[in-house]
Amino acid sequence: MSERDRKPRFQRGSQKNEDRGRGRRRDRDGGTGGPAILYGWHTVTAALANPARNIRKLLLTENAARRLADENIPTRIAPEMVRPNIIDHRLGPDAVHQGLLAEADPLPSPDIGALTQEGIVLVLDQITDPHNVGAIMRSAAAFAVKAIVTTARHSPEATGVLAKSASGALELVPLVTVSNLARALTDLNDRGFMTVGLDSEGSEDLANVALRQPLALVLGAEGKGLRQLTRETCSAVARLDMPGEIKSLNVSNAAVLALYIGASRLKLMR
Amino acid sequence: MSERDRKPRFQRGSQKNEDRGRGRRRDRDGGTGGPAILYGWHTVTAALANPARNIRKLLLTENAARRLADENIPTRIAPEMVRPNIIDHRLGPDAVHQGLLAEADPLPSPDIGALTQEGIVLVLDQITDPHNVGAIMRSAAAFAVKAIVTTARHSPEATGVLAKSASGALELVPLVTVSNLARALTDLNDRGFMTVGLDSEGSEDLANVALRQPLALVLGAEGKGLRQLTRETCSAVARLDMPGEIKSLNVSNAAVLALYIGASRLKLMR
Repeated sequence: MSERDRKPRFQRGSQKNEDRGRGRRRDRDGGTGGPAILYGWHTVTAALANPARNIRKLLLTENAARRLADENIPTRIAPEMVRPNIIDHRLGPDAVHQGLLAEADPLPSPDIGALTQEGIVLVLDQITDPHNVGAIMRSAAAFAVKAIVTTARHSPEATGVLAKSASGALELVPLVTVSNLARALTDLNDRGFMTVGLDSEGSEDLANVALRQPLALVLGAEGKGLRQLTRETCSAVARLDMPGEIKSLNVSNAAVLALYIGASRLKLMR
Repeated sequence: MSERDRKPRFQRGSQKNEDRGRGRRRDRDGGTGGPAILYGWHTVTAALANPARNIRKLLLTENAARRLADENIPTRIAPEMVRPNIIDHRLGPDAVHQGLLAEADPLPSPDIGALTQEGIVLVLDQITDPHNVGAIMRSAAAFAVKAIVTTARHSPEATGVLAKSASGALELVPLVTVSNLARALTDLNDRGFMTVGLDSEGSEDLANVALRQPLALVLGAEGKGLRQLTRETCSAVARLDMPGEIKSLNVSNAAVLALYIGASRLKLMR
């Protein structure tokens, strides 16, 4: 959800937030060339269940190995058995890894032309916080979203905290990485998508917009909102009306609400 | 939202998560006796606008002071003018403080008997992550929730990261802290509230439950869900049906969805 009314003026402080979760230099495709670091029960078991995910290395504690065996989950490659503190040391003290750590190849990014012309896709305009993007991916998987489109730059990589917050959704929702978001939106418009930007200054409440499939819901970063060119390229710009004193939500909260409204209106709730 | 299907077995790893954002010893009322640390534009300006909030100390950078002056926001007490790195040093490198830091008295916790018998209250059963609780408070303020009921223990304090994530909502939504949640739910039941627990194993989709005011929506921690006694004390237990492969959401995402469904069904969306 855009929060242009909340735009912070202090670029220095804001910049710090923008940089959270990045820190490694990207190559041309937006990746660092390094492996995806996956940890935690749901994140790693979802990767093990995904035949398209190449696992390079798997570290397990004794407890985690026993639990995988109990649940008949094959490890696919021979795991390295380690003490928990080895994984603690790799990830830092705050990571809830539950005794599982995998290094895996990043998943391929499909082309925007490969998207089926049905259902809902989510488009993220430079949302940088990996917890938020992970939570959004998890909600996207819960609402059967067909794909998430992000920018190669100013987006967190599909690894670490993002993967953990996504709780397995990385394996379920294709991530389409584009270098130019306005061009991607134009492509979507040309391919028959209704592209709806969420912005607190939108002309209508999303619940009152006549939505149709295929639908692309476009969300901007907290504080900055949709970039001007993004907003201008959307076929409609809508707001989320709420009855209380605060008029904007955490971006992942705005995303799940937009998904619920979209999926309900399009009769996709089953 | 309860995620009992996702319950982690590794208590050690889980415990780490439970402890995030705590770390100081509580007194009998659940507080540490220390001041509430408030930082960031929305959080501090909301506190300055709240006559019930006693501000003890206010640190401002030159930019922040100018912005407050530009927007005619009185500081109420004489601020200490500081360089940004002084605030960085107090809060750590990841805090986006935008040049404002206040030390304030914690707000009083109203008694459960003081709640008006209308609208929606949220009840949080040992949700410990301060980012999630802060995002939930922000959504609560957006949906005009009357109060949030939390347990004195196993809940993060209304300070720091929680206050920042709440984005000013601490000043808008009363926080009722109770020592025994089941007793609080019984009180709510006795006072005419419909108490609805959210749990993935609920008997009905929340959207299909005949909701009525006053309504208490009860959410459990991720991984652990509602405690048994909490679930048994609720007048109904409902799930959130979603069409995708992942069946549970980040708890703040589940909260905003439950609020939207509740507020829509009760015709509180204005």
